[in-house]
Amino acid sequence: MDTEHGPVFRPAQHDFRWDGVAHLPYKQDGSAPFKDISRQVLFHEAALGCELRYFEMEADGYSTLERHEHTHAVMILRGHGQCMVGTEVRAVKPLDLVTIPAWAWHQFRATDGEALGFLCMVNQVRDRPALPTEAELQAMRAHPDVARFLAG
Amino acid sequence: MDTEHGPVFRPAQHDFRWDGVAHLPYKQDGSAPFKDISRQVLFHEAALGCELRYFEMEADGYSTLERHEHTHAVMILRGHGQCMVGTEVRAVKPLDLVTIPAWAWHQFRATDGEALGFLCMVNQVRDRPALPTEAELQAMRAHPDVARFLAG
Repeated sequence: MDTEHGPVFRPAQHDFRWDGVAHLPYKQDGSAPFKDISRQVLFHEAALGCELRYFEMEADGYSTLERHEHTHAVMILRGHGQCMVGTEVRAVKPLDLVTIPAWAWHQFRATDGEALGFLCMVNQVRDRPALPTEAELQAMRAHPDVARFLAG
Repeated sequence: MDTEHGPVFRPAQHDFRWDGVAHLPYKQDGSAPFKDISRQVLFHEAALGCELRYFEMEADGYSTLERHEHTHAVMILRGHGQCMVGTEVRAVKPLDLVTIPAWAWHQFRATDGEALGFLCMVNQVRDRPALPTEAELQAMRAHPDVARFLAG
């Protein structure tokens, strides 16, 4: 049996925290492109090539509006809110699935007065996200749903 | 944007089913090494190299007792039950994490009178599972916790 792995069993604690999993709030200052969001890496096994992370935004928090070559496979795990992928904005609830294709602009927002948490499966080796230019933001805002979403 | 992917948003339905995801009960006959278990493949994106599946056992159901080279990364999503990995048996509950290392014997059992469901992240390309020989089963049963678990 492989002996390089960590513990086999890691029980869940209260409030979407886990034994032996670091809780990593993103540092934010006045110019941060995100708000009140944290990350926990649940699985990072070299043999798998993918990671499974849990992201959580507090009420009114949001993830960075970004895009990249790599794909995200998302399952909502906690709470309600909204998600933008490309020019589509949807309300999301626990267990909903969201596929974020290569180069699609995307953002999650905890718009329902409660925390919004989701699992995200992603390649361990991946490109860095790009942020939108002012011209790209203007083009996004041409879609009324997106404009409303981005205005919070 | 990549246009080869399926729908971006797939809302959850009632009872751990999803829009656009096939529900695949395993066929069983008298000699089947599993009982009352189904599989749903939630994500299978070529770019990721991994899949995310949801397995569910009905009350008193169990998964196949098996082992293989490939690794499983598991999160319990529904209900309570028991899980064996190697010679360790643990009660599991929603959100608990289980890492199944290469070549560890493993099985899940819905022992608590309710359905037990879990997410499983796995490589898309993987080796076939091996079933235990009678000698291997006897060696497993030398561990009292395992013997009790396997007796159901």
